[in-house]
Amino acid sequence: MVAINNKSEVEQEDEKPKNILEDKKIFPDFKNGPLAKYRQLSTFCYKSMNLLLEGEEHIRMKHRIWNFMEKHPDFQHSIETPPLDYQRRMANRRCQLLWNQQFYGLSDYIHAPHLSLALSQGIYSYEAGFAIKYSLSNGMFPSTILSMGTERLAKYAAKIANNEIIGAFALTEISHGTNARGMRTRATYDPETREFILHTPDFEAAKCWVGNLGKTCTHAIVYAQLYVPDDTYQGLSAFLVPIRSERTLLPFPGVTVGDLGEKIGLNGLDNGFVMFNQYRIPGENLLSKTGDIDEQGNYVSKIKDSRKRLGASLGSLSAGRVNICALAYVALGKAVIIATRYSASRKQFGPEDSNEEWPVLEYQSQQYRLLPHLATAYALRVFTMWIGTANVDLTFGTFLGEDTSSKGMEIHAVSSATKPVCTWAARDGIQECREACGGHGYLKVAGFGELRDDNDANCTYEGENNTLIQQASNWLISLRRNDANFEEVSPMGSVVFLKDMDAILRTHAAERSVHEVLQPDNLLKALNWLVACQLDASVRYCEKLSKQGQNAFETRNNMQVFKAQQLSIIYGQRTIYYVFQRFVNDLPTSKEKNVLFKLLSFFGAHLITKHIGTFYQGGYFEDKAHALLYQEGILNLLPSLKNEAISLVDAIAPTDFIINSPLGMSDGNIYQHLQAAIVQAPGVFERPSWWRDVTYKELQKSKL
Amino acid sequence: MVAINNKSEVEQEDEKPKNILEDKKIFPDFKNGPLAKYRQLSTFCYKSMNLLLEGEEHIRMKHRIWNFMEKHPDFQHSIETPPLDYQRRMANRRCQLLWNQQFYGLSDYIHAPHLSLALSQGIYSYEAGFAIKYSLSNGMFPSTILSMGTERLAKYAAKIANNEIIGAFALTEISHGTNARGMRTRATYDPETREFILHTPDFEAAKCWVGNLGKTCTHAIVYAQLYVPDDTYQGLSAFLVPIRSERTLLPFPGVTVGDLGEKIGLNGLDNGFVMFNQYRIPGENLLSKTGDIDEQGNYVSKIKDSRKRLGASLGSLSAGRVNICALAYVALGKAVIIATRYSASRKQFGPEDSNEEWPVLEYQSQQYRLLPHLATAYALRVFTMWIGTANVDLTFGTFLGEDTSSKGMEIHAVSSATKPVCTWAARDGIQECREACGGHGYLKVAGFGELRDDNDANCTYEGENNTLIQQASNWLISLRRNDANFEEVSPMGSVVFLKDMDAILRTHAAERSVHEVLQPDNLLKALNWLVACQLDASVRYCEKLSKQGQNAFETRNNMQVFKAQQLSIIYGQRTIYYVFQRFVNDLPTSKEKNVLFKLLSFFGAHLITKHIGTFYQGGYFEDKAHALLYQEGILNLLPSLKNEAISLVDAIAPTDFIINSPLGMSDGNIYQHLQAAIVQAPGVFERPSWWRDVTYKELQKSKL
Repeated sequence: MVAINNKSEVEQEDEKPKNILEDKKIFPDFKNGPLAKYRQLSTFCYKSMNLLLEGEEHIRMKHRIWNFMEKHPDFQHSIETPPLDYQRRMANRRCQLLWNQQFYGLSDYIHAPHLSLALSQGIYSYEAGFAIKYSLSNGMFPSTILSMGTERLAKYAAKIANNEIIGAFALTEISHGTNARGMRTRATYDPETREFILHTPDFEAAKCWVGNLGKTCTHAIVYAQLYVPDDTYQGLSAFLVPIRSERTLLPFPGVTVGDLGEKIGLNGLDNGFVMFNQYRIPGENLLSKTGDIDEQGNYVSKIKDSRKRLGASLGSLSAGRVNICALAYVALGKAVIIATRYSASRKQFGPEDSNEEWPVLEYQSQQYRLLPHLATAYALRVFTMWIGTANVDLTFGTFLGEDTSSKGMEIHAVSSATKPVCTWAARDGIQECREACGGHGYLKVAGFGELRDDNDANCTYEGENNTLIQQASNWLISLRRNDANFEEVSPMGSVVFLKDMDAILRTHAAERSVHEVLQPDNLLKALNWLVACQLDASVRYCEKLSKQGQNAFETRNNMQVFKAQQLSIIYGQRTIYYVFQRFVNDLPTSKEKNVLFKLLSFFGAHLITKHIGTFYQGGYFEDKAHALLYQEGILNLLPSLKNEAISLVDAIAPTDFIINSPLGMSDGNIYQHLQAAIVQAPGVFERPSWWRDVTYKELQKSKL
Repeated sequence: MVAINNKSEVEQEDEKPKNILEDKKIFPDFKNGPLAKYRQLSTFCYKSMNLLLEGEEHIRMKHRIWNFMEKHPDFQHSIETPPLDYQRRMANRRCQLLWNQQFYGLSDYIHAPHLSLALSQGIYSYEAGFAIKYSLSNGMFPSTILSMGTERLAKYAAKIANNEIIGAFALTEISHGTNARGMRTRATYDPETREFILHTPDFEAAKCWVGNLGKTCTHAIVYAQLYVPDDTYQGLSAFLVPIRSERTLLPFPGVTVGDLGEKIGLNGLDNGFVMFNQYRIPGENLLSKTGDIDEQGNYVSKIKDSRKRLGASLGSLSAGRVNICALAYVALGKAVIIATRYSASRKQFGPEDSNEEWPVLEYQSQQYRLLPHLATAYALRVFTMWIGTANVDLTFGTFLGEDTSSKGMEIHAVSSATKPVCTWAARDGIQECREACGGHGYLKVAGFGELRDDNDANCTYEGENNTLIQQASNWLISLRRNDANFEEVSPMGSVVFLKDMDAILRTHAAERSVHEVLQPDNLLKALNWLVACQLDASVRYCEKLSKQGQNAFETRNNMQVFKAQQLSIIYGQRTIYYVFQRFVNDLPTSKEKNVLFKLLSFFGAHLITKHIGTFYQGGYFEDKAHALLYQEGILNLLPSLKNEAISLVDAIAPTDFIINSPLGMSDGNIYQHLQAAIVQAPGVFERPSWWRDVTYKELQKSKL
């Protein structure tokens, strides 16, 4: 296989030096420029920080991919947004190129499963649309077939492994997304031919938003309502459905498949829709792990309840959410890197007794715009490594037949709370970074528009954020109402503290100084109280509504605003803080740890200032001036963290080629890069071809 | 002139019926569909509401423009984003077409100046990039020449009036935006030839971000540092500079002018940059209202202080900010209309005992996502009409020689606070609406991406939001510190209440029921306290920093976070609420007034819940449960406002052609429109031309 030859070439090139910190391919010397001053001010080594955060293999894997991309002509960036069809074409090509390299094949996965995080984060750092296309084809599609199908689909598995077919995952319909049980694509079993007949009653039941379906897939996993003879309904089931010829790429008769068109972002990914017209597929194409058709044509399943069957079959979506948390981190990180480097290079105003202007990073208001997002990026870096690792372990545990039900449930709850928290943090952070770079941040080449547009999708797919958070609050509320054993249900530790919930509810803020409120343990104590208080308020409200005669459907709907929604968000934030704090605590003493400790304090204090109202309402803050301590703490930390800011972003920054923003290069020479980006655009100095429309408009008027 | 003929044609077509409410061209009958149910539920007439909000002439003007656009081939919408050059070309063409129609010429301006608001809002509703281009060419450029130039530029004024030259406004430089005094483009007077020599020392001093400069302008108003002989510096001055030939559109020797390239949004507008190389322009081209070169070659000015001169010369930017508030309203309104109509049509889930699914608008969580933004849109509708009208009056008053200094100062402060508040409200509202429409909201055709991308610029130009808010807080703080007469400095009434500031600071929340907290007067009382408290805290903090020995520069920088920034935002929000409340109070009794009253309560309560922490910290809320009353009030109003929501958006909605979103059409037939939009896209069902890259990749590999 060509891929293997290529791989060894790459490996030869990347021969490992003994110490990664001295590897100039990974940590090149920075060119001199406006950022040098800040690099001297910082108190720690950015390389060691990177190593602490990600580990050597993770870093090497990402750089191997980035270096390959940087050298390849088909990965070069374009200055203007290319036409839609070209974006699709390039995304397909890049997926093939990456697959050929086999940076991380099946055997790598078996030997070092956690490195799958480095692969997905590495390629997402380059460009999101192509990265998601790659993950769909090489991750979600094959893993769904492996986990939900049985051996009879082995021939497909082989074709996927050889990259001979391209797959898609078709669940959502035009008129049903969140409510999977309301879907209307139908699969009827014909016992005579042992086939399923797929049918789409109307456009509203067309499968849609399916990645790879628009232009490129040959097969799709399609969810349809299964009916066996005598019109007996068996619930939503998944089928492997041939869509287009593996040779001509033309759709089969009975399949109407099309492209969903231009989207806000992710335009490399060809999302599509499909309608079936009495389309027959072989009986063996049912993904039959949870149920199958027997010789007599009856549906048989170990899981009797069709809802539970659906739950089991959709379980793989949880991995998607875990992955999205990390994608949100990548997007936020990139934005923060660009805006922080820009702010350290860009000068504006200065003291009246000086001719020298100040870098805008020197201003308190600019620090407070950026540093909370930088701290959040660090918290998400740590959190997403933690939950990503836990999820890989879960998947392996399940394969090995372990009882992973508690962990699976907890990851489901944590990811349902944190996928919204992470993607919204990225949404808000990217926007703030865009604005913090002023007009130049509004240029396409600055990169914020693409980050925002791509991350925007993260808020919606694999569970729309506002709907998803209900999963976490439902879990928490039912644990509390059922007086659950919080230690037993929480192998990952996200709710263990709630075993003392009643005691926590009786606590009050005891700190009397800025120094005290900034102690990470005290911050955690406050956040623990916050979760407990919001859970208690939600449970009481829920019970109040029940007593008023509202049924479960009404109660669930009417306790969302101010109660259950906030509960999930707070639980998600507290979990992220908790994981970050544990990570910092567990580090051996070092300069890096000292800075992380400050960042952790800052992050915690910042979270608390977002919920000051609740702290007063719930009585945790008794003294009306208590909130001031947190605000002062934040103001005190700003000047000190400002001096670390450039090294902090260096420690999470990809290569300049991947950053690809004149405002965010590692040398900080913003105006040189800006000039280059502007004057290199096609036709920049040219008179437009339609110049007569401007200066001879009276002659053109008749044409208009 | 062709324009006049065209105009009379249009007017014939638009012959006014006696009563606008019966004019089917403006208020056509809605087609039946999913929204009919909500229209029956509402308690008021949406047409009367529209009339109350905007007035008959405003409505007629907008519809005249929209009807013209709808019929013209060059205003038809494209499904995919066209290439950059095509967007530029179409924006230029549309500007010319609109100018030809003379919907609102100079004489209209003199007779009905307030209708200028309808013109700019009407065209911005269609598409932002072209609208801003039109405003620059026909508003900002000529009005700057009129207000800052003298009679000797009359020949240019005539050419502008005949649309013979296209102008630009060049202030910002690559390395200086906010700090205008740091700019480095230089104009040296040569007394021998009576010319100015313009020179740009390097790329960092290139004028940039200049609308119309990239491809189309023939002239630009350029700000440069003026030096007269003996190298005497005279401050930043404005010059009318020929850029390109009025015939060939080629740049003149000595002028390097180029296009700034693709932006996040507003791509119809050709922003550009320009550098001058010892470029000579006639001495008469100095805009000389505030100062001129005399016969001896000396600079003479009535205003001795060069900073004050700059202030006077940049005064025209205030009008821009007022206008941007209205543009933010238009963008937010459009998003809310689309998302609300979608939410009333889209169904998902339902009670367990029913086969019928519920429109998602029936869910509390969806109501709370949309209704705050709907209420904000209404508040901004009223506020932007008010401040727009006040600003037109101010301009006229100044022309007529009245003393408008107090009013000018107050509009400057109000617009500096509210431009950020309005544009951020639009930013957050558009985003929430995008997410509230789920995946379908992520389609390009849904329209949210364009609204978001275009409004994004509103947060930055004409004063970057975070910098701009300092203007308002500086004003408020200096008024308080100087013990100003708050009635005298506030002809528009935005700070009159602060005359009782010390008494206000001693008040506490006195309401004891949900009914009481929702009373508009009580809400205003709370907001008044909020401004007073934040102003008091800012002043005290400022004085504390001074006492610690910080100079003015340091004090100003270090009091921003938690103090001065919040002060400006709160002042802006309170002003918007105050104007909205006064508007509702002054209406005669009607069904529309009843609904507006509810919306006002909802808006006020919503504002207050955003600042709960401050209410507790400052001691206004003494009972820890007090905030619950506001939250309950909001929850109580949701179901009632939900029933009015469709008629409320109908009352501010442009025509379907202008809305141009399958999710937001007035008939609510979302799936039909969605299907049409998707299947009408070019090549939707076609195999890509690069299909061999997908299915014959082993053959393509060598090429890759």
